[in-house]
Formats: sequence, structure tokens, C-alpha cells
Amino acid sequence: MASRYYFDWAATAPPETPEGKPNVPFGNPSSRHGEGKGAREALEEARSRCAAVLRVRPDQIYFSSGASESNAVVLFSLLMKDRRPSGGAELLCSAGEHPSILENLGPLERLGLKSAVLTLNSLGALDAGVLGAALEKNPALRMAAITGVNNETGAVNDLAALTELLQKKPGLHVHSDLVQAAGKIPLDIPAWGIDSASFSGHKLGGPRGIGLLYLRRPLVPLIRGGDQEGGIRPGTENVAGALALAACLEARAEPAALNTSWALARERMEALISLLASKLPDRFAPVPANRDDNAFSPWILQARFKGIPGEVLVRVLDQRGFAISTGSACSQAKLKRPVLESMGLDEEARLEGIRISQGWSTTMEEIKALAEILAEICEEL
Amino acid sequence: MASRYYFDWAATAPPETPEGKPNVPFGNPSSRHGEGKGAREALEEARSRCAAVLRVRPDQIYFSSGASESNAVVLFSLLMKDRRPSGGAELLCSAGEHPSILENLGPLERLGLKSAVLTLNSLGALDAGVLGAALEKNPALRMAAITGVNNETGAVNDLAALTELLQKKPGLHVHSDLVQAAGKIPLDIPAWGIDSASFSGHKLGGPRGIGLLYLRRPLVPLIRGGDQEGGIRPGTENVAGALALAACLEARAEPAALNTSWALARERMEALISLLASKLPDRFAPVPANRDDNAFSPWILQARFKGIPGEVLVRVLDQRGFAISTGSACSQAKLKRPVLESMGLDEEARLEGIRISQGWSTTMEEIKALAEILAEICEEL
Repeated sequence: MASRYYFDWAATAPPETPEGKPNVPFGNPSSRHGEGKGAREALEEARSRCAAVLRVRPDQIYFSSGASESNAVVLFSLLMKDRRPSGGAELLCSAGEHPSILENLGPLERLGLKSAVLTLNSLGALDAGVLGAALEKNPALRMAAITGVNNETGAVNDLAALTELLQKKPGLHVHSDLVQAAGKIPLDIPAWGIDSASFSGHKLGGPRGIGLLYLRRPLVPLIRGGDQEGGIRPGTENVAGALALAACLEARAEPAALNTSWALARERMEALISLLASKLPDRFAPVPANRDDNAFSPWILQARFKGIPGEVLVRVLDQRGFAISTGSACSQAKLKRPVLESMGLDEEARLEGIRISQGWSTTMEEIKALAEILAEICEEL
Repeated sequence: MASRYYFDWAATAPPETPEGKPNVPFGNPSSRHGEGKGAREALEEARSRCAAVLRVRPDQIYFSSGASESNAVVLFSLLMKDRRPSGGAELLCSAGEHPSILENLGPLERLGLKSAVLTLNSLGALDAGVLGAALEKNPALRMAAITGVNNETGAVNDLAALTELLQKKPGLHVHSDLVQAAGKIPLDIPAWGIDSASFSGHKLGGPRGIGLLYLRRPLVPLIRGGDQEGGIRPGTENVAGALALAACLEARAEPAALNTSWALARERMEALISLLASKLPDRFAPVPANRDDNAFSPWILQARFKGIPGEVLVRVLDQRGFAISTGSACSQAKLKRPVLESMGLDEEARLEGIRISQGWSTTMEEIKALAEILAEICEEL
């Protein structure tokens, strides 16, 4: 401790693990001594840096343990609001939401909060027409959750158009899970006027256990504890995680960096699709078959290879050194593909679907190797 | 990526931050490829190591983002149970619980779940008599939360005696926040027969953003998402955090290590109290005044220095290089001392209270320096 004497071990212990690098102040940001103040400054610096990248105010940024928790904070805050006389659903989601949204509808329903799930169009996105009809049908609506990019298909929701529609309903809280959008495609939170958004650290190359919640205005959370993060998210603040997340957001989501990586991702995705189409004209099909590059994230390709179940293909690819998934890691155990189902795909197509997702260090050589190995495997199976 | 091709960036990105040390597999443990399986193995290894230290089964260990979340998972699971016809409180807590328990009583009450808070005795602990009376008075009781060690006074609850009483009530869930107990005093989870317990990583010298929940039997959680951690705690698993927590538990809470550090902590605490008593016979008093070493954790001393408000003393100590808090970092913003109030301390005593907490690397020299500086400051102020 050099010239300092630390007698606040009940607040937090000096770190012994690699995480606590010496340049991250280890104090508990809620403590009032020098160690605490140093940690508080670092935390607020991380908050300001995240806010700058997302072009929002620092006091609109709340650190959480991850996007699943950020989504839960927003959804469950509905239970703390005065209930309106019934008029249909109070909560609306697209069928393309992450399990950390959709799986919470059951418990919320059990606590008396009605919800509705809107079917996706054949491109995997939410249609403005479908949303508009749902708004008419559910006068008591108080929240809508619409993801930026679907995590299985890469389908991009037109948040500009959808939020314009949603804003016509006064008092409606608009939430967006932007986990697969941040650092991947351009975001415009101020223009969309959304009320809240969720972000994950590790999806941006940062550590696990850190995420972010953007809140246009503070809300009343269900879960309480210490006063950390304005009472929105209790628990000793993860300063090292917050700094790492800020660095990742800067590296990935700043317009200059994003425009470069986005253009390169598009090039590689186009190359992959055209290589597969030319090598395997009868076996390969993107999912949906009418996939339109402009309506999809270039970082995610849902695809099928006719005659090969996705599970089998993923296993064989793994044996040959290629790490690929079928759907979302968060729903792997279930073997269901509700997103593909909502898009109207039949069972065979759903079973054959695999998800190829690339990142900023993916190279054109890796893309070529993947197309090559898929052609090889299709010849064998 | 060497000989591997990684195309599962939508599940998780290879880390770029110091957290992701090369020896921690970076994959998403829910992914089925090699990277995912490696991460799963590491996670299960961490789980087994934590279970071994706590002498429970690995399938009873759930990783969370921290103790605040662990407490919330248990408390809010009450909302998922069938409600009983009213018969007093359904949830019972001691007044010595952490804010992550007590602050949730309001939201739970709002959702129809009645709770009762039991007053502490003058030593800051929960009396078996008080608990017994409350059990009689509240026939519909379904959960009781009793901390192992109070985080402000170090008062130790006699969990062996209290849980014996609680177990007479069939179907009652007994939860214990063991954050300030783990690695600090001996624990006997199997003997106490508690149903759940919370632990924090950073209080053991580990990183922020990782905690642990012990569950004797799985419960039905309120908050859902991916199927991670048996559905109890959604969100991509923090493998690096889990491994770091396992290492910290082994280093601090294994019986041999604990017995040594506990004996040394007792020696230092006794030295501190007797140095302060001899240097400042008219100014220093432990809180409570009748503090009995055997009923308190040797790692925490709540004390008052007559005539000096705790806030002032903490500030002056900080200026001279000593980091000390008044109460819990998690309730610093409030300037209230509900724990001291529940023990029957008057306002003056509450305002003067400071918390001195030591750790495993605290030395006898630091203890002497602290007593010296406190004597100096008392002479000046």
C-alpha cells in the first residue's frame, strides 16, 4: 500500500487477481476516502467516454453486469408503475428479441402484466404496418422492445421508421437491445429518441460481467440495494470493466472506426455469400432465401446447406477447426429456432440453419478457407 | 487464432482487454464448438473448486454478477411461488441485513408481499428469542434472511442456533448473506442447513462483476433469459471471473488458510482495541460499548471517538493517508445508520461511528500506525 494505510476491507479488498491491473484504482467508488475517490473518478471517466461515443449525456449511462441485466432492469420497471385499466397488452416485443427479453414475458404475465409478441416479416424484421396495427389494438400499451439487429439472422430493424411510429403514442417507453448493433452498424440514439438501450461488453471484445444501459430519463427499478448507479443498478461498481467497455466502444463504435470496419465487413460478407453461391449453387442458401444485403448486418449470416442438419454441420466444422453456431448461444440448450419460425420458415429449413458471424479481425483468407471447407463438407455429406 | 477459424462473433468476441488472459478460454460456454467447450470446462472447474471450499455440491453453486444480485435472485423468487392466504409477513429479515436485502422490501411490499424486519440486540445480532417470537406471529412466513456477519459492526449472528430454530418451520426458505463471513470466519453451510447464501468476489480480493449464489435446491427465478446457470442467472457466463473467485475462495476460505488468517486478525484486532483504549481512555469506545470479541468478526471494528463526528474523522484520516469509512459503502450516500439505530444507539453515537476494517495483508505495524494517528487527531480535535 506504499504510503497509504488501507482499513476499509469491508468495502472492498485490494485485488489479487490479474483483473485488478495497477492502473485501475481498486477502491470502492462509494467510499469517501482517496481510494474511493480515485475509483469514482475512473468510473465517471468511463461513463463520459461511453456517453461521447453514443452521443448521449454521461448521466444517461448506467453500468450493469451485461445486456441481459440491462434488459431486465427496463422490463421489470413496468411493475413499479401505476397500472392502467386493462386495454390489451401493456408490453409489446418483436419475435426477434433476445431471450433476455422474450423469456421474461412469462414471469411478467404471471405478475399481471399482459404482453404481445409481434411476428416478423419474411426478412426477419418487424414491419411498420404490423407495429402500427398493434399500437391501435393495445391502447394501454406502455412499453415496446425492438432490437436493433437480430442475433440469429442479422436482420436489421429500421429503427428510424419504427421509432417514429412509436413516438406518436405519448408516454410509451421505447426500449432497444443494441447488443448486436453497437460497434457493428451505425447507431443514432439521439435521432431515434429511444428511451432505453442495452449494450454488452464482451460482444465488443471487452470482459464479461460488464454491460451498459442507456436511459433517456431515470426510471424506477424493481430491484434495489446500494445507491450505486443512481439506484438503477445496485452492487459495487465494476470500474475495471467500465474502463474496458469504454475503450472497446471507442475502438469499435466511433464513427471513423465503425465506417472502416463496417465497409470491410460488407466486403467480406459479400465475398462469402458469392463464394458459397458459386461453389455450392444447389446446396447453399442464405436464410431468408431473399436476403437483401441492405437489410442485414454484414457481421451475421444465417445460412442453410441443403441436406445437412445445422447441428451436424456445426460439429463437423468444429472438428476441422471452424467455430460456428446454429443459433444464439443463449438458447442453444433448447434446440428451438423461434426467430426462424416467426419468419415463416418450415421445420426442415429451421433445422438446417447455421449462424456464421464474423468480427473485426476476421480476414478475407479466413472467409475463403470457410467457403472452401463448406464446399468440401457438402461434397462428403 | 492460430490453427482455429473463429466465426461465432455474435456469441462472443475474442478479448482485447487485459481481463482476457490467454489461459482463460474465451469462448461462450453455451456455444457447442471447441472454444465454447473449453470455456464450459473452465467454468465447471471453477464451480467445482468453489463447491469444494464451501463443502457443497457443484450443482448447488451458481455464478452471478455479485452478492447484490445473488440476494435479489433469492428474494424475488418469492414472487414466483403460489401465494398463501395472509397470515402476517411472508418474508422476515434482521435489521442487520445489507441494503441489497432491506431496500428490496419496499418493491416486494408494493407487489403484495408483506415483510417484517427484526430488531437487533444491543450487540448488533439477532436474538433467538426475537426470531422465535416472530416465527410464532407470522404463520404464513416463507423466507427468512439472516446475514452471517454485519457489514458495519462485524456482529456475528449465531447461525447454528438461529437456523436450528428456523428449521422447525417446514418449507421455510432460509437465506444468508455471507459476504463478510466467507474467508473471514469459519462457515458450516452443510451443518446450518441453509437454503441459500450469497458471496462476493471482490470482497475476497477477486475482480468486480463476479459473485456466487449457493442454492440447496434450485428455485424458480423471477428474471429469465438464456439458459445459463441452470436458468437461475441469465447472461453470458463470466469464466475469468469465476476462475478468479474460485482461486480467492481457496486462498481465503479453505480451513487451513482461514484458521491462520483468522488467528492473526484476532491478534491484530485485540492489539488495536487495547492500544486505543490505553492511548485514548476517555475518547475511544468500541460500538457497541459492550463489544465482546467472541461475538464479533475480528476483521471489522465499529468505533467512536467522542466529540468527533465520524464524517470529520474519516476525512482527516484520509488526509493523513488512512482509508477508513463510516458505514457501508453501499449506503454512504444516505448518511443514515439504520444498523446502529436498531441496536438502540442514540443519535450522537450514530454520528460518531466509524468502521475500521482490516484484511489479510494488514500488518501489526499498520495497526500501530492507525492507533498512533488516531491518538494524534484526538489531541488536535
